[in-house]
Amino acid sequence: MKRDEKFVYQFGEGKAEGDRTMKQLLGGKGANLAEMSSIGLPVPPGFTISAEACNLYSESGEWPDGLEQQVEEGLKTLENQMGAKLGDPENPLLLSGRSGAAISMPGMMDSVLNLGLNDEVVEGLAKKVNNKRFAYDSYRRFIDMFGEVVMGIDHDQFEQAISKLKKEKGADVDTDLDADAMKDLVDRYKAIYRQHTGYMFPQDPLEQLHFTITGVFDSWNNPRAVKYRQINKIRGIMGTGVNIQAMVFGNMGESSATGVCFTRNPSTGERELYGEFLTNAQGEDVVAGIRTPKPIEKLKDIMPESYEQLDEATQKLERHYQDMQDIEFTIQEGKLYLLQTRNGKRTGIAAVRIAVDMVDEGLVDKEKAVKDLVEPRHVEQLLHPQLEEGDVNKEDWIGSGLPASPGAAVGKVVFDSDDAEKAHEQGEKVILVRIETSPEDVGGMSAAEGILTSRGGMTSHAAVVARGWGKPCVAGCDDIVVNYRNKSFTNGTITVKEGDWISIDGTEGNVIRGKKPLSEPTFGEDFKKFMKWVDEIRTMNVRTNADTPEDAQKAIEFGAEGIGLTRTEHMFFGDDRIAAMRRMILSENSDERREHLEKLQPYQKEDFKGIFEAMEGRPVTIRLLDPPLHEFLPDREEEIEQIADRLDITRERLNKKIELLKEFNPMMGHRGCRLGIVYPEITEMQTRAILEAAVELVQEGKEVVPEIMVPLVGSAAEFINQKEIIEQTAKELFEEIGQSVDFQVGTMIEVPRAAMTADKIAQDADFFSFGTNDLTQLTFGFSRDDASKFIPHYVQEKILPQDPFQSLDQEGVGALVQIATEKGRGVKEDLKIGICGEHGGDPESIEFCFNIGMNYVSCSPYRIPVARLSAAQSQLKMKRQKDKTAEKASVS
Amino acid sequence: MKRDEKFVYQFGEGKAEGDRTMKQLLGGKGANLAEMSSIGLPVPPGFTISAEACNLYSESGEWPDGLEQQVEEGLKTLENQMGAKLGDPENPLLLSGRSGAAISMPGMMDSVLNLGLNDEVVEGLAKKVNNKRFAYDSYRRFIDMFGEVVMGIDHDQFEQAISKLKKEKGADVDTDLDADAMKDLVDRYKAIYRQHTGYMFPQDPLEQLHFTITGVFDSWNNPRAVKYRQINKIRGIMGTGVNIQAMVFGNMGESSATGVCFTRNPSTGERELYGEFLTNAQGEDVVAGIRTPKPIEKLKDIMPESYEQLDEATQKLERHYQDMQDIEFTIQEGKLYLLQTRNGKRTGIAAVRIAVDMVDEGLVDKEKAVKDLVEPRHVEQLLHPQLEEGDVNKEDWIGSGLPASPGAAVGKVVFDSDDAEKAHEQGEKVILVRIETSPEDVGGMSAAEGILTSRGGMTSHAAVVARGWGKPCVAGCDDIVVNYRNKSFTNGTITVKEGDWISIDGTEGNVIRGKKPLSEPTFGEDFKKFMKWVDEIRTMNVRTNADTPEDAQKAIEFGAEGIGLTRTEHMFFGDDRIAAMRRMILSENSDERREHLEKLQPYQKEDFKGIFEAMEGRPVTIRLLDPPLHEFLPDREEEIEQIADRLDITRERLNKKIELLKEFNPMMGHRGCRLGIVYPEITEMQTRAILEAAVELVQEGKEVVPEIMVPLVGSAAEFINQKEIIEQTAKELFEEIGQSVDFQVGTMIEVPRAAMTADKIAQDADFFSFGTNDLTQLTFGFSRDDASKFIPHYVQEKILPQDPFQSLDQEGVGALVQIATEKGRGVKEDLKIGICGEHGGDPESIEFCFNIGMNYVSCSPYRIPVARLSAAQSQLKMKRQKDKTAEKASVS
Repeated sequence: MKRDEKFVYQFGEGKAEGDRTMKQLLGGKGANLAEMSSIGLPVPPGFTISAEACNLYSESGEWPDGLEQQVEEGLKTLENQMGAKLGDPENPLLLSGRSGAAISMPGMMDSVLNLGLNDEVVEGLAKKVNNKRFAYDSYRRFIDMFGEVVMGIDHDQFEQAISKLKKEKGADVDTDLDADAMKDLVDRYKAIYRQHTGYMFPQDPLEQLHFTITGVFDSWNNPRAVKYRQINKIRGIMGTGVNIQAMVFGNMGESSATGVCFTRNPSTGERELYGEFLTNAQGEDVVAGIRTPKPIEKLKDIMPESYEQLDEATQKLERHYQDMQDIEFTIQEGKLYLLQTRNGKRTGIAAVRIAVDMVDEGLVDKEKAVKDLVEPRHVEQLLHPQLEEGDVNKEDWIGSGLPASPGAAVGKVVFDSDDAEKAHEQGEKVILVRIETSPEDVGGMSAAEGILTSRGGMTSHAAVVARGWGKPCVAGCDDIVVNYRNKSFTNGTITVKEGDWISIDGTEGNVIRGKKPLSEPTFGEDFKKFMKWVDEIRTMNVRTNADTPEDAQKAIEFGAEGIGLTRTEHMFFGDDRIAAMRRMILSENSDERREHLEKLQPYQKEDFKGIFEAMEGRPVTIRLLDPPLHEFLPDREEEIEQIADRLDITRERLNKKIELLKEFNPMMGHRGCRLGIVYPEITEMQTRAILEAAVELVQEGKEVVPEIMVPLVGSAAEFINQKEIIEQTAKELFEEIGQSVDFQVGTMIEVPRAAMTADKIAQDADFFSFGTNDLTQLTFGFSRDDASKFIPHYVQEKILPQDPFQSLDQEGVGALVQIATEKGRGVKEDLKIGICGEHGGDPESIEFCFNIGMNYVSCSPYRIPVARLSAAQSQLKMKRQKDKTAEKASVS
Repeated sequence: MKRDEKFVYQFGEGKAEGDRTMKQLLGGKGANLAEMSSIGLPVPPGFTISAEACNLYSESGEWPDGLEQQVEEGLKTLENQMGAKLGDPENPLLLSGRSGAAISMPGMMDSVLNLGLNDEVVEGLAKKVNNKRFAYDSYRRFIDMFGEVVMGIDHDQFEQAISKLKKEKGADVDTDLDADAMKDLVDRYKAIYRQHTGYMFPQDPLEQLHFTITGVFDSWNNPRAVKYRQINKIRGIMGTGVNIQAMVFGNMGESSATGVCFTRNPSTGERELYGEFLTNAQGEDVVAGIRTPKPIEKLKDIMPESYEQLDEATQKLERHYQDMQDIEFTIQEGKLYLLQTRNGKRTGIAAVRIAVDMVDEGLVDKEKAVKDLVEPRHVEQLLHPQLEEGDVNKEDWIGSGLPASPGAAVGKVVFDSDDAEKAHEQGEKVILVRIETSPEDVGGMSAAEGILTSRGGMTSHAAVVARGWGKPCVAGCDDIVVNYRNKSFTNGTITVKEGDWISIDGTEGNVIRGKKPLSEPTFGEDFKKFMKWVDEIRTMNVRTNADTPEDAQKAIEFGAEGIGLTRTEHMFFGDDRIAAMRRMILSENSDERREHLEKLQPYQKEDFKGIFEAMEGRPVTIRLLDPPLHEFLPDREEEIEQIADRLDITRERLNKKIELLKEFNPMMGHRGCRLGIVYPEITEMQTRAILEAAVELVQEGKEVVPEIMVPLVGSAAEFINQKEIIEQTAKELFEEIGQSVDFQVGTMIEVPRAAMTADKIAQDADFFSFGTNDLTQLTFGFSRDDASKFIPHYVQEKILPQDPFQSLDQEGVGALVQIATEKGRGVKEDLKIGICGEHGGDPESIEFCFNIGMNYVSCSPYRIPVARLSAAQSQLKMKRQKDKTAEKASVS
């Protein structure tokens, strides 16, 4: 141990030995206090003991050599700065002690305030501030905090003592207790302290300080903190810093105050000092809600000078941190102190306005604005109605599920798709509540304001469809049990019946009883301006998943640059189409199948024409039929009877087919390109429909860019089989019509085997599109319809960092995506690569896609602005890293 | 083109310009003819035109320069050797022309015999052999063959002509036609030829030869051959060779003969010249079956000198090829000619005897015997009864399915497990026929001689259980439809009712009507001797998959060196156990679960003790509970009622639980380690049962090597979670008992994500065991229970080379196995790695496992000898490759 090792870093009076880059050594809190101090802001002075000291203490169980002396010196400096002295009854210095590691974590020691009080000093303090009650109140709080956080005495012990005293005195609230009562309380607290520790409460302020510092060191290794670090895999941090700081008091009379403020309005983004304060009060009083705080502009009237100081200081902070700040301050006898600053939380609308304003004001440049000032979730918020801010009454809270499709909705509960449609026709707003949804519920889902299911994950039918439409959805809410027969659902306490109002919040996943107020989405000029900057920066394309011309239109409004996924199977569910589809499935041979497929073809062609037209020459990727055929057949007894009648076949025949097509694991069954391989006529029909649509538009002088996508390919042979059919069909068609169009044929990469053999597939494929929903299912072996039974448990136990259907699992699934990309590009350098799974709208996943060099991401229309922003941010992040690397290289 | 390029390679008279290593240039046939000739065996002389000539012809459409002349020279040499002349009526030389590439393929040109005959020569031939009918019969056959294979005339045209003539003449069979009739036929054939080609049949023998050679060249590029090469990815072969050879005739009187013979008895392996012959006959006559051939030893009496020659020649061939030979010969007027030789097909018992005898005779060494003389399927045959050889009447053939478990069985058909058991008790032999089987059918399966299912793949329940027991099974036989209600099944033509006899052949996958004779398995001294050599060579271990002490015992007899997979779930199906299991599943909380698990534990412990004892200190890998819990609950209405009564709960409660546990894709649902993670008490109970069993045996002085295996791991976090529970449980148990045992904790690698993150998992795992069944399912996205609907189509269309559940898909699944092995060993150099999927018994897959360095393969008991042989052969193959590489290195 070197005796001259530096453990103590002073700050205050416009100077500091540390700065904000030294988080590893000083912890986050210490580094920021130093920063504020060194840019000349009024911070109560103090010093930070480094995490290294903590580390050495942890190893040896003793303070490292030199620390004692450095603390003493630090204290002396502090005393000089404050013109007061620890333990001096005439002119006492009081201190706060706080932990602070590089990463904040629960279980670490909390604050100890008012350190330095003892039986003598408390009297001196009372005299000095001329307030005996204040002094003894401070003292008893100190004993409580010290006892609890340093000595491990249960806080309840102290609570019980104060309750008993209040009863004795007939006092309702703490403030009813007078100075003598507080003094009495100090005695009772000291007795508790002695009883639990076996020692007298320490009267020596230096001893108090020593204990507090050691207490913070010890808290680094308490079981809860150790466990937290283990679980969260926090390594490489040597310990916690300890911040010792002079106490300042906002409750020293009418020239003192305490408050919080924002440099801009966090709701609207308007540039103004926004916040509230209380005179003659401490922070806790604001929280306790006994007195109503005043809006910050009132401070201008009461303490114009302090207000001026505050305004200046906060603006300086904003300029310094280049972001809107959330600041805690205290005014002690007219003097302003800043206790904390951090980037302020804000609404989506505020984030965009602040970003645009700060660029206009010249405070930041566009890159900074795009990179740091607006988060993807801010943009998300702007696109959907939200529940208005304000507390939800606990009694109304029904349960929570997955935030499956963002936005909030209110409506009367219905349990049936038909009921939803009927109510909708009569102008009623409804929420469709189902155990889970199926393609047969689409009508009702469309009619409803929002959807709530008790089963299913982030990629369940309900979630996928709802996101596609931008309709709020809470999925897999297993707090509730749905009873279709009684038309009700219950969480055990609250039972909601058909017709009752509920509110759902698909952004957070909450379900609330009653009709809560909503705030409507807003799309201003600021937003357009901001998104223009985003697009100027962004190079990766953003496409949409869209199955209808309406979806396509919506997506273009949101900025889509093409369609990355058109699912063709939804087109078979229309009332006039499903019969032909079912007849096709019931066919006994390929001629019969062909006959029914021919009836479907004109419908498909019209669908494709609509989509091509809406996209106005942008690329459109169309996926060939994907789901297993049994999904098109009924499964309920009544339905089977009805449908057999409509198709004019016996129920036995229909039942036999249903039995034949039944699968144990449909996700891994006869679907995807396996259909087109066994029934090539399906691929032929779809190819004709796509290309006829394209040719007809080209003949009208329109531009069309069709990309035909083969699903669920696992080997080059499968892809080649389908490609040959497509090309042969195209050749014949073009010859028939005497007109051709350019088109591409590519494949989904959604089966692990496709990733492993991507080099072989790439030889014949024009593009790859990662279907990360299925790829995630198969890579994990998680059926997304079933995994909701254990994924929450996994996430809770930290076996998974998050639901891999929400955010791409980069370690496993991502590794396959990367292998496939490398193998594919190894064979075909300019292979077009995109993603069309639900992850295409998730910011973290988008960054991953950008980093491995994808050409585009594709997501549901309502997520497009989020994806655009995420893509731009990923780019800026990579640029910054490159800049850093270049800098390092040029330095060394 | 160099004029002096060599295209024609002569052979005959004990010499040859080629040899058997020149397959690329001369094709397989040409190279072998050269080889036989050059070791001094009597081969009809001739010459081979190289594949290079064919290649040049393909490119230019013309014979390459020099070929014409070389063919003429070749012909001249041949004429000199034979003392006869092409086209000379006095002393005619007749030729045969055949294609022959380096790899044989369908669509290539067949033989043209009797080339050289024309209107003049035929008369000369008649005179020379004094047999006009023979001469004209030869002529009309030549026209037929030349017309068909060179000119593409449909063979039916000629067939119709001969039929018409027979009708006119009142002849029943061809041989009823006399010489004049044959002459008539020649005229009719020539007319057909002219009609279809527009030309006269060519009379110039040189022209005939030219056309034939060009015809062979052209056949290389006919669409069928091109397609075949494409599909089978045959590349790098430049063309086909053309073999022109002097005709020899076994039908030139009583001193001529033709026949086939083996150097050893192909049924028993006995060392003797074995075969049959006909005097004064051609090869076709043997096939036609008009005359009954005589056993070869009769030849000794009839033509002692020729027999002597034949015996010598064939022994020489056997010595030369170091294998039992299957030889075609012709004796023309007392002179022996060998027309073909190849390694002879043989039964399993013969293969083993021949291998052992040839080593004993000093003909080959042990390595050669193990590497080449016995195939895995030979060993397979020895272990199971087989259908006796002989043709199955076509009318009795019912259908074919997957060869799911080898061996043949005969029995009366039953459709129900209970019926099977009842019949078995009454001493009846039955075949259990089901659409598919489930764990509830095990009783009936055990009672049956064999199992036939109409649905399911190579790893369906029926297949896996049957293989485990060595019981014949044909699975997924979709030629039949099973009707439980009528207790019958039908293939559309044949309907089989309950009680009817059928025979199934699980080695080939055939289902046959009636009671066919079986040959019993035989295990002689030869087999033991041979397997001893196998084990001396082999270094990779062979373990078994076994769930009971009986299986374990059987496996040891077959040579198992440990257990690679004990499935614990089967142990829960016993009558007394299933109730406790169901109560556990129905529990509402972990205390309740624990209570019921405690009841199961003693059963499990006893099971494990039995298995450990049977294995006598060999390692035993036990997999923790794997299937989803709903598999233990009933699904049929009646059963639900019964079981609810037995468990003394309401039907509603049971139904509710069944509903709750229902899964869309059970294969990817809540199973494997996901059970032990959500319900740690299950893992605890199983760990206790395993280790208590082990400790108790250790206390009895016995040796036990337990390896606990965590199933379905996808991430290191999952494995660590389970390992911690196992180790904690072990620690507590050992402290309780005051005795401990060594044990290992490892994991299955059966989820693609586990392969991708194997480096992380290996840090904590003692071993990896590849579960290639599930890994194949997830890598392909093929549900094995459903994929039987399209895999046969895939294999037929060559989209898959074979069913990936039968033989490991090395390109995709194998790539993941390799990645996982490399990643695992990268972290832990001596990580123990094995395979316990069904592939562990498949020879090709075993070679793959050996090549990537696995420590062991594990398979069902009846496949162990096959696995032992395959492992040894893989090793010898690798050794040979290394030797070759070393040789090359030392040469260069």
